[in-house]
Amino acid sequence: MSDLDTSLDWLDALKWDENGMIPAIAQDATNGRVLMFAWMNRESLQETIAGGKAVYWSRSRQRLWCKGEESGHYQKVIAIRADCDGDVLLLSVDQVGGIACHTGRESCFFLELQEERWIPADPVLKDPKDIYSVGS
Amino acid sequence: MSDLDTSLDWLDALKWDENGMIPAIAQDATNGRVLMFAWMNRESLQETIAGGKAVYWSRSRQRLWCKGEESGHYQKVIAIRADCDGDVLLLSVDQVGGIACHTGRESCFFLELQEERWIPADPVLKDPKDIYSVGS
Repeated sequence: MSDLDTSLDWLDALKWDENGMIPAIAQDATNGRVLMFAWMNRESLQETIAGGKAVYWSRSRQRLWCKGEESGHYQKVIAIRADCDGDVLLLSVDQVGGIACHTGRESCFFLELQEERWIPADPVLKDPKDIYSVGS
Repeated sequence: MSDLDTSLDWLDALKWDENGMIPAIAQDATNGRVLMFAWMNRESLQETIAGGKAVYWSRSRQRLWCKGEESGHYQKVIAIRADCDGDVLLLSVDQVGGIACHTGRESCFFLELQEERWIPADPVLKDPKDIYSVGS
């Protein structure tokens, strides 16, 4: 794929897929852990920049999704990068609460392949019941 | 999306998309830099594990693509993780040559958004002409 054309408008320079989406990787700005992967459309990227908190497009819910809106585990965006061909974003974030995963772990990438099995390799920092408790 | 079912066969447990693909993020095992993003199908993941070097599916060339096959900048795979719902892979790699990007930079994510412009924010470590020279 061709390289990102830096002469274009910054939003037009990105290569949105056939559904108007671009993959976004969130990385902890402090320790470098890759925290999660999600999708953005133009509106979610614009809201992310306007508000300073990561807003993704939830494909399952078919709506904008401000990460942390239920859990309180927002992601304060420190920097945004694109890759060479402009079809993937990398967000450097401060992860509020130190928990990005709905399972209560630091990162969604906690399953390590060991001898042809996926092994949970990171501790649960907070019980999900305490993260998503009704009425909280 | 439902969580990865660790009771399934490790390959069947992953959520391959409608094209039989899964996104894969490569991260430097030493310094934590996110190096690149690509796609894998079942065969590329199996080859990656069998050979210990990252093999992706090239959507532009429609064939398996062993990263480094032209440049020599192979990725030795140290560990493979999946995310909570099993639809993204994270590869921890030793990046041969310290260069993952075809532009001669360490990482493909070298374009930083600054005041609504994408600014190349990392140095070119090696001239691409010297990486991809004919006959080498």
